[in-house]
Amino acid sequence: MPRRPAPTIRPLAPSAPRRRHDATGGADLSRRLAAVRLGQGASSLHPLTDSAANAALESYDRGVKDAFDRIVPVLKRLSALQHEDDFVARAQALAQAELGFSLPLPILEKAWVSQLDMRSLFAWCVFETYEQTSDGFFRDDPLQGQPGSPAADEFNAFLLSCGFHLLDATPCADGRLAHAIAFALRLPFSSVRRRPHAGALFDVENTVNRWVKTEHRRYREGVPNPAHDDTRYLKVVLYHFSSLDPTHEGCAAHGSDDALAASCGRQRLMEFQQAVENSFCCGASVDLLLLGIDTDTDAIRVHVPGMDGSTRLDHWLDAATVYEATRHLQPEEARRRIAELATAAAASTPDPGMVRLISRLLEHNISQIDYVRQYHHGHYADAGHAERFIGVGIGFKEIHLRNLTYFAYMDTVEEGAPDMDVGVKIFKGLNVSRGLPVPVVVRFDYNGKVPGARERAVRHAQRVQEAIENRYPDLFAQGLLHALLTVRDQERHTPAEAVGSTISLTTAGGH
Amino acid sequence: MPRRPAPTIRPLAPSAPRRRHDATGGADLSRRLAAVRLGQGASSLHPLTDSAANAALESYDRGVKDAFDRIVPVLKRLSALQHEDDFVARAQALAQAELGFSLPLPILEKAWVSQLDMRSLFAWCVFETYEQTSDGFFRDDPLQGQPGSPAADEFNAFLLSCGFHLLDATPCADGRLAHAIAFALRLPFSSVRRRPHAGALFDVENTVNRWVKTEHRRYREGVPNPAHDDTRYLKVVLYHFSSLDPTHEGCAAHGSDDALAASCGRQRLMEFQQAVENSFCCGASVDLLLLGIDTDTDAIRVHVPGMDGSTRLDHWLDAATVYEATRHLQPEEARRRIAELATAAAASTPDPGMVRLISRLLEHNISQIDYVRQYHHGHYADAGHAERFIGVGIGFKEIHLRNLTYFAYMDTVEEGAPDMDVGVKIFKGLNVSRGLPVPVVVRFDYNGKVPGARERAVRHAQRVQEAIENRYPDLFAQGLLHALLTVRDQERHTPAEAVGSTISLTTAGGH
Repeated sequence: MPRRPAPTIRPLAPSAPRRRHDATGGADLSRRLAAVRLGQGASSLHPLTDSAANAALESYDRGVKDAFDRIVPVLKRLSALQHEDDFVARAQALAQAELGFSLPLPILEKAWVSQLDMRSLFAWCVFETYEQTSDGFFRDDPLQGQPGSPAADEFNAFLLSCGFHLLDATPCADGRLAHAIAFALRLPFSSVRRRPHAGALFDVENTVNRWVKTEHRRYREGVPNPAHDDTRYLKVVLYHFSSLDPTHEGCAAHGSDDALAASCGRQRLMEFQQAVENSFCCGASVDLLLLGIDTDTDAIRVHVPGMDGSTRLDHWLDAATVYEATRHLQPEEARRRIAELATAAAASTPDPGMVRLISRLLEHNISQIDYVRQYHHGHYADAGHAERFIGVGIGFKEIHLRNLTYFAYMDTVEEGAPDMDVGVKIFKGLNVSRGLPVPVVVRFDYNGKVPGARERAVRHAQRVQEAIENRYPDLFAQGLLHALLTVRDQERHTPAEAVGSTISLTTAGGH
Repeated sequence: MPRRPAPTIRPLAPSAPRRRHDATGGADLSRRLAAVRLGQGASSLHPLTDSAANAALESYDRGVKDAFDRIVPVLKRLSALQHEDDFVARAQALAQAELGFSLPLPILEKAWVSQLDMRSLFAWCVFETYEQTSDGFFRDDPLQGQPGSPAADEFNAFLLSCGFHLLDATPCADGRLAHAIAFALRLPFSSVRRRPHAGALFDVENTVNRWVKTEHRRYREGVPNPAHDDTRYLKVVLYHFSSLDPTHEGCAAHGSDDALAASCGRQRLMEFQQAVENSFCCGASVDLLLLGIDTDTDAIRVHVPGMDGSTRLDHWLDAATVYEATRHLQPEEARRRIAELATAAAASTPDPGMVRLISRLLEHNISQIDYVRQYHHGHYADAGHAERFIGVGIGFKEIHLRNLTYFAYMDTVEEGAPDMDVGVKIFKGLNVSRGLPVPVVVRFDYNGKVPGARERAVRHAQRVQEAIENRYPDLFAQGLLHALLTVRDQERHTPAEAVGSTISLTTAGGH
C-alpha cells in the first residue's frame, strides 16, 4: 500500500465562486409556492439571529464544498489537454492554480500511452481535498468549537448549570444531518458526544459502556464534576423529516414516516435508560430528550419532556412556530417567551434546567432558520443526496457540513454492510453513472496513550478495506471504488493521518 | 431457521465405558520412555493432592467426552440398519439407549428414498450433546464453582485477602487449555474473568473497558470492595508449550516457540498496564502475572513478579520442580516450602499477597499434575487436536474440558477470520477427511437486564452464521459445515438457548 504524501495545504479561498441555488428546479409548483411563503421576510432577520455567525458558517460550508466541486471541471480540462506535448507541466500548473495541490506524477506520466486514468485521478483529488479539509479543521478551528475555546468553555459551564454533565447526541447518519450539531443546534462540536446512526437508532450496549466511562471519570477524577453532584447524563436522539416532500425525503431507515422515526427514537432512548437503571444500583439513571429536524429548513422540533421522564410523541414545540411567535420581540423578551413556550409544551411539569437547555437550543436554531432563509431561499436546493464521499469507520470529528459525507459508522463491514450498501447505491447514482468512482474514506480513531493502539487502528482500517473490496468486487476491479485509509489520535487535536489507499502509484516519479 | 426442540435430558452415565488410554500408540519410543519415567510413582500421590476432586473431575471429563464419542458408533449402526423395514423405530430405540435422546424424524423418514443424511444427523447429534452438556453444567454445577458456591465464596475472600479485587485471566484459545481455569489451576470458574485469545494475546482496548467497568462498580456499589480499599486488578496471561514435542506441539500462534510466547505475553500485559496508567489519573494501575503451562503434563510455570512490577522471562518456578521438592513433606510443611520457593523465584522482592496467591495456584496445580499421572499416565495421549466442535462467538462459560472445543472468540468473522480458518483446517483433518461435517456452535451472551439485548444477540448470531456460510461456501454447500446458533443470558445461571441452526428439518413429522 503506497503511503500518500503529506497534503499540500492551501486555505480555502473565501473568494471562490458562489454556488447558485436555483429555486425554480424540478419540484412542483405548490411546493415552490410554499417555499416562497416560507422565504418571505428573509431580509429581516430574527432579533436573536447571530448574522455574523451565519456569514462565517456559510463561508466555511461554501469553501469546503467548492473545493470538492472544482475537481470535475479541472479534470475535464485535463482530459482535453492530455495528448499535448507539455501535458504534465500544464496539468500541474492548472491543478495548483485551481485545486491548490499537485497531481501524482505517475498517473500524469502514463497518460500518453493510452489515456489518463481519470478514475484514479478523481479519487486522488477527492482524498487530497478531504485531507486538506481535515487539516484545516484542526488547524484553524473554523467552527470555533474546539476543546478549550471560549465557546466550548461557556457552553460546558451552561450545560452543567442546567444539571447535565454530558450531552450525548445521536442524529441520523444521513448526510443531511451531518451539520446538525455545529449548524442546526449551534453547539461547540467538542461539547457534544456525537454518535450518528442510521435512523438515529444508537447501540444500547455501546452507549451503556460510554455512560460507565463517563461516570467512572467523575468518580475517579471529578471530571467534568464529582460523581456526588446531582447532575445527569443527557442522551439526545435527533430524527428527521422533510416538510416539502414528507413521503419521499424523510428518513430512509423509517420509510419516510416521521411518526415512526419519532417513536423508534423514543423507544431506543427508553431502552437505554432502562438498561442503566436495571444494570446499576443506587438510583443510576439518565435523562432523555427527543428532537426532530426538518431537513429542508433545518427547523427543529422539541418533544419537551416532563420532570417525570414522560415524552409525548404527538406533541412538540416547532422552532418555526417559536420563530414566528418571537420575531417582533426584543431579544430578552423573546428569550422569556421561548422559555414560556417550552414550559407550556412539556409532556408534564418540566425540569427547569431542561427548559433552560431547550430554550437555548431553540434560540440557536432560530439563527439556523435564518441561515437557510438567507443563503438557501428558505429551504435547501439539494433536498436529496449530494454527498462528496462515503465515510466508513469510527471518528470523523471534523465533518460538520450538510451533504458532504454519507456516513456508514461501523467497526466491521460484516455488521455495517446494510449501511454501506445504501451508501454505495447512492454513489452509483451520483458518481458511477458518470463513470466516476465511489470515493470511500475509511477512518478509525485511536487513543494515542494506549501502546500499540495506532498500529491496531491501521490494521483495522486495512481489514475494512479488504472487506469492502470483497463486498464490491466488480466496482473495485473496474476502478470504480477507491478507498483512502486514515487514522487519528482522538486524544489530541490533530488531523486525520492517511495510512494507505487503493490508488496504485507504482513508478519512481511519484510518491 | 427451524427452532430446535428443548433437549432431552439424560444425566451422563458414570458407568459409561471408560475410554482406553493406550500409551503404546504411534509416538516414538524415546517419548514413550520419558512418559513412563514421568509416570513413575503415580501410585503415591503428593500430600497436597486432592484425590477426591481428581476423581470427580475425571468422571465429569470422561462423561462429557464419552457422550460425544458415542455418536459415531451409533451412526455406524444406524447406517447398517437404514434400509430395514422398521428402521425408524429401531433407530429411535438405539439412539435413546445409547445417546439418551431421540433423533429428528424428518431425517430418519427420508432414509428409504436414497440414504440417510448422515452429515446432518451427525451435526444434529453433536449439537444435541452440546446442549445436554450446557444444561448439565448449569443444572448440576459439576465443577462446584458456580457463583455463591462455597468454593467460590472461599476463593473470592482469599483473593481479596491477597490484595486483588479481580482475577482476569487470558489463556491461549487452544482447546488444550480450555480446562486451564477449572482443572490446571483448580479455580472456581465464577471467580475468574476468562477471556481466551489465540496466542494469549488479549485485546488491550477491551480489557481497559473491562477494567473501567470493574472500577466503576467498586465506586458505585462497593462490589467486590470499595474503590478506596488498596487492592488491585490482576491480569494473568497463560501461555503454553509442550515438554514432549516442544517444536511441534507448542503454541501455533507463536510457532511453537515458548520463549516467544512468554515474551509476547509479557509485552501485552505491560501494554495493558501502560494503557491504564496513561489514560487515568490518581495512580491508576493494575498488577500483572505471567504463567506458562505444559500441555502434556499440565504443570505450570510461574514467572513470579517483583513488588516493583518486574517479570523475568528467563526465570520461572516450575510446578513439577515444586512437586518434587515437596512430595515427601507434611502438608503444612509443604505449603511453607512452596511459599519459600515462590519468594526465592521472584524477579525482585515480591509482594506477600502475590506470593500467597501464587503458592495457592502451585498447590492447586500439584493436584492436576497427579490427575494427569493418575488418569493419563503422566501426559495426555491426545497431544494434538481432538476437539469435538468449534465454538465461535463470545461466551461458553460452561466449557472447561480439555480438547473438547476449538475456540474462535470473535464479534465478527471479519475480525476473527484467521482464528476461524485455523479451526476449520483442524476439523478438515478431524472430520471432513472422514466425510463428517465441521460442527460449529455460535454463541453470543447478552445481558438480560438490557431491553432488546436478547434479540440483538440472536441477530448477531445469525449475522455470524451468514458470514461463516460466505467464507466457506463449498463446505456449506456440501453439508460439510453445520452451525448451531445459541445465546445465553450472562446475568443468570441458565444454560445456553438454541435459537437456530443450519440443519434443515422441513417435513411435518419433526421439529
